[in-house]
Amino acid sequence: MDRKIIDPRVLKGFRDFLPAEEMTRRGMIAAVENCFRSFGFLPIDTPVLEYAEILLGKGGGETEKQVYRFTDHGGRDVAMRFDLTVPFARFVAEHRGVLTLPFKRYHIAKVWRGENTQKGRYREFTQCDFDIVGSASAAADFEILLMMRESLKAAGAGDSTVHINHRGLFNRFLAGIGAADHSVTVLRCVDKLAKIGAGGVRSQLETALDGGQCDRVLEFTGAGSDGAAYETVLERLCALAGKAEDTEHLGRLRSYMKDAGVEDGFILDPSITRGLDYYTGIVYESFLNRLVSIGSVCSGGRYDNLTALYSKEKICGVGASIGLDRLQAALEELSVTASGGGARAAVACTAPDSAGGAQVLAAPLRRAGIACEVFFEPVKLTQQFILAEKKGIPWVLVPPHDEKPLLLRNIARRADTEISGAEAAVPFILNRQ
Amino acid sequence: MDRKIIDPRVLKGFRDFLPAEEMTRRGMIAAVENCFRSFGFLPIDTPVLEYAEILLGKGGGETEKQVYRFTDHGGRDVAMRFDLTVPFARFVAEHRGVLTLPFKRYHIAKVWRGENTQKGRYREFTQCDFDIVGSASAAADFEILLMMRESLKAAGAGDSTVHINHRGLFNRFLAGIGAADHSVTVLRCVDKLAKIGAGGVRSQLETALDGGQCDRVLEFTGAGSDGAAYETVLERLCALAGKAEDTEHLGRLRSYMKDAGVEDGFILDPSITRGLDYYTGIVYESFLNRLVSIGSVCSGGRYDNLTALYSKEKICGVGASIGLDRLQAALEELSVTASGGGARAAVACTAPDSAGGAQVLAAPLRRAGIACEVFFEPVKLTQQFILAEKKGIPWVLVPPHDEKPLLLRNIARRADTEISGAEAAVPFILNRQ
Repeated sequence: MDRKIIDPRVLKGFRDFLPAEEMTRRGMIAAVENCFRSFGFLPIDTPVLEYAEILLGKGGGETEKQVYRFTDHGGRDVAMRFDLTVPFARFVAEHRGVLTLPFKRYHIAKVWRGENTQKGRYREFTQCDFDIVGSASAAADFEILLMMRESLKAAGAGDSTVHINHRGLFNRFLAGIGAADHSVTVLRCVDKLAKIGAGGVRSQLETALDGGQCDRVLEFTGAGSDGAAYETVLERLCALAGKAEDTEHLGRLRSYMKDAGVEDGFILDPSITRGLDYYTGIVYESFLNRLVSIGSVCSGGRYDNLTALYSKEKICGVGASIGLDRLQAALEELSVTASGGGARAAVACTAPDSAGGAQVLAAPLRRAGIACEVFFEPVKLTQQFILAEKKGIPWVLVPPHDEKPLLLRNIARRADTEISGAEAAVPFILNRQ
Repeated sequence: MDRKIIDPRVLKGFRDFLPAEEMTRRGMIAAVENCFRSFGFLPIDTPVLEYAEILLGKGGGETEKQVYRFTDHGGRDVAMRFDLTVPFARFVAEHRGVLTLPFKRYHIAKVWRGENTQKGRYREFTQCDFDIVGSASAAADFEILLMMRESLKAAGAGDSTVHINHRGLFNRFLAGIGAADHSVTVLRCVDKLAKIGAGGVRSQLETALDGGQCDRVLEFTGAGSDGAAYETVLERLCALAGKAEDTEHLGRLRSYMKDAGVEDGFILDPSITRGLDYYTGIVYESFLNRLVSIGSVCSGGRYDNLTALYSKEKICGVGASIGLDRLQAALEELSVTASGGGARAAVACTAPDSAGGAQVLAAPLRRAGIACEVFFEPVKLTQQFILAEKKGIPWVLVPPHDEKPLLLRNIARRADTEISGAEAAVPFILNRQ
């Protein structure tokens, strides 16, 4: 038979997760999920593959180029989801009849984009989305803002700062300076502010706006660049654009922050625009106080018509998405990933026929919440202790053999303790004795 | 603007999971994962998309027809994984240098097959695989057998019975009756035993075997059909095929079962063959005692060369896979799916500007592990109580307003209790007062 060896490798931009990384990732997911649940948010799931028409309905040029799209066996034009928002919009439209509004859901899953890979950018990555649909209130916005900081903290990332802007206010301001027709161009430019600086943005803006308009736009987006307080920046924006429902909304959010004692976690930052996304109300990005440089780890905004493509009913919403891969990279850089999660104990193999009895010895440990391996090969005990050490297993139960009693071996201390039964090992392993 | 409405729908064979179903599914996953961890198994993850050559190396005809395969932006021939075993083989070969053998891993993830849909069959489904690679011992086989029953029980499915056969013994038997060359045909036929009965299998076998050979094959596969004890069936198989390492292996497993006191959970059933799968040692399927009719919910076997396609090193292994979708269907049929998981409490909205204070009231409940929603709209309290009832939320905190104190509303009993602070609601909600 032809025995050609196929080189074992993954596609560019794709990754395996080895146990240590995967345990970290599952731990992060459990932590943010637990936070979402505590706020009464419920999980949903949707298919990885959908009709291309459903996913690409809006025909975003950039997205269309990146999406994994093909024809299936039945001749259907299908695509792999590239985010969790579009499938959610389809989901809400399809199941509208059985959903009680406001509907609060989270969805933690992989998405795919065939974009150019670079450090920290992958073609397969995980998003943690949480949204509230069916409420236009500032109270809903505030809950999402609160959850962003709470879930990042739950994941072990410590305190974070959320930068907020209002897309509706920005558009109203553009209309006020006679630049409403150029909002797409302006958004595209301003989105690069952090990357190319005010000078770079200005020279790009000049292709569409006159000099005075450019000044005004940069005045607006820079209104928070001196680190002024939320209230001060809001006053400046009111001076630039005039007062309206949008500025009132930003003021209302501020009073909620104060009532909840979390005002230090939020900055009004008119340079945040979220590019060409479909937001219509507030938009936000959040940064870890201990690692600002890694960029936004959770962002989102308010949209006034989620299901526009699939339904005539207008359903508004507000939400955010944690980029799990970037957050995991941040936790690794901060050295706060929890290690461990592997077995805390093992049962040694003292005879070729001892497998049944070994599993009996392991059972009470497992019941007590202690992950316990059983070793399979009746090799010398010293070899088994070395295996335990290599695997990071601190305790080994040695079954009675050669007239020796049941022993509990502490691998680090190289010390044995005689115990009366496997149950008696539990307090040692849980460090209660 | 053109406002064509796109019909919101999913592809045939694909499904959305609404919150109640998704909570059940996540609960099942957490339960089996917890069981796997208690045995010292560690999680891994691999990409959904791989090189088609990697996934289809063996070129299984049936598989190739079902797999979702296409050309990506870079002109690569790629495919979505159709099981978790092939990616695991690639994973072990690729990361061999950093894995300590025996390596015990689990992987819970979706896989895709474009097969014809029928009741309970989906094109997107979830598998829970657990394998031990790098140990040829019966002790490793036994651990997997034990874990099958333990994990199904942990998921709430109660007791199950594992039907065991030995592929190596079966092949040795076929060689003994001069039918070794027809083993693929025979396996394909015998695999249909449950579906088309002994008569149907016989008439298909006759295309390849003579009458005497057919009799012997059916005698072998039927050796357990009278419900005889494991030991009796093993004696019959020894009589039909002679004794060898494979029959000894089956005897050794039986003694482990007895030592561990779990012998009632296992049947020696020579009609189990696992079709054309790549197994070389024991094979097994498991059935829920309370719902045998739904078919096998967890199956697997031992293979002697997992990484053959990707490496010259021979790495053996043994494992099993839970079909999560079928298990979920079974739990639903048995009405043992845990309901709930949604919010246990809500904070009512008593004023348009109360959102900050409402989140403060919710915080101690959330910290106590009680999922607590905040209501956003300052509508009449009776309307908010109706919303709580509709959402299955049994308790509502009503903030102080109109000179009334903080109240805790029991929705079912329509009764209010005055409490001193939100913390005081915790014992009521946890049913400790």
